[in-house]
Amino acid sequence: MIRQLFDKETSTYTYLVADMRSRKALLIDPVDAQVERDLKLLRELELELVYTVETHVHADHVTGSGKLREATGAKSVVSATEGVGCADIPAAHGHRLALGSLELEARATPGHTSGCMSWVLEHEGRTHVFTGDTLLIRGCGRTDFQSGDSTTLYQSVHTQLFSLPDSTVVHPGHDYRGQTHSTIGEEKAHNPRLNREIDQATFVGIMADLKLAPPRMIDVAVPANLSCGRKVEVQGG
Amino acid sequence: MIRQLFDKETSTYTYLVADMRSRKALLIDPVDAQVERDLKLLRELELELVYTVETHVHADHVTGSGKLREATGAKSVVSATEGVGCADIPAAHGHRLALGSLELEARATPGHTSGCMSWVLEHEGRTHVFTGDTLLIRGCGRTDFQSGDSTTLYQSVHTQLFSLPDSTVVHPGHDYRGQTHSTIGEEKAHNPRLNREIDQATFVGIMADLKLAPPRMIDVAVPANLSCGRKVEVQGG
Repeated sequence: MIRQLFDKETSTYTYLVADMRSRKALLIDPVDAQVERDLKLLRELELELVYTVETHVHADHVTGSGKLREATGAKSVVSATEGVGCADIPAAHGHRLALGSLELEARATPGHTSGCMSWVLEHEGRTHVFTGDTLLIRGCGRTDFQSGDSTTLYQSVHTQLFSLPDSTVVHPGHDYRGQTHSTIGEEKAHNPRLNREIDQATFVGIMADLKLAPPRMIDVAVPANLSCGRKVEVQGG
Repeated sequence: MIRQLFDKETSTYTYLVADMRSRKALLIDPVDAQVERDLKLLRELELELVYTVETHVHADHVTGSGKLREATGAKSVVSATEGVGCADIPAAHGHRLALGSLELEARATPGHTSGCMSWVLEHEGRTHVFTGDTLLIRGCGRTDFQSGDSTTLYQSVHTQLFSLPDSTVVHPGHDYRGQTHSTIGEEKAHNPRLNREIDQATFVGIMADLKLAPPRMIDVAVPANLSCGRKVEVQGG
């Protein structure tokens, strides 16, 4: 089972993935403010939370993984490259996460941050990919802070994501326009920054011209997420 | 294909349903403010909009059906009971809407309004129901304005919706807590107002005690929706 959940405040998508035979579940990119909602849903569906999985260290919201680990004993999974010392499972490219009869496979897709990971799942005859902020619907994550790099992001999308079957369902980390999912084929054709007509130099130029304001929560969110969701005293800020 | 779309301003879900062989599509509960997004998606997916379907006359947002009809020629479908004189297809309980090889079937589920309809679809081996405001995830539409009646809503849910298979996917008209879908089995077990332990009198009491403020947009939305999305001069208001 795949169930999308939304945090309206930060337009973040969290995903509940569960194997309904073993009742084992994981949450991808849980949000601190939504932990009670998510725990209630796990109880109602009689699911055991085994993992929390971060696609990356977020700058726009605090992860719920710390509170969820305390409440359930779920192990937290995040790319080793992100440097989250308190994570239970520092994962590398190719890491396989077993969930009953389901299996998720990590693909390193750096560019928004240096440790961004996408997770691929075969489920009910279809390929699914949870892309975090690497590939969004008709967009992508910004590359102008943390360890972002637009050349790297372009390479990640084209080699690691666009190599998946066109019918692969794309489950993004955010959406700001009410879109909930997409497919790899759609993004190859219609992503205005990353469709197959756009070369790397053009993409790098697009990203350099965005001139976005810093994310509102970055000074709180990044230190907290490096501490598995514990809000820490920020020096300077 | 079923694709959920969200209007953040009013927490409204719109659904794009398409038969990918014939490329025929319909939109359930389109939102006026999102028509450009929805038309763009139809163009990108190379779909022909054949119908717009209203689950009811909304009090919280203006329908996009008028603009969509002008742009595409799609026929608007709404329960005859709602009294929308400009609708192309006034539907009754049991109405079948063909969409290429797909078929949606109307179930009259009054209670939130007297003309509320849910639409049932068999798709990829599963039953789906678009419930509008009759059944929400762990909730239901209010029954204290327009032609609402809580006894009627209780009967609609228990006879028309809870009679569907437990595995039926519930696609609601709104959600305010970031939940995207549910199942009939889950709602029978966990809906705090309508689970199988709650009798009709208790439900009527719960609804009478809600004491909600009137919806912000009711004076604009209801007259506009009775005119297929044309915003009309409101007398008095």
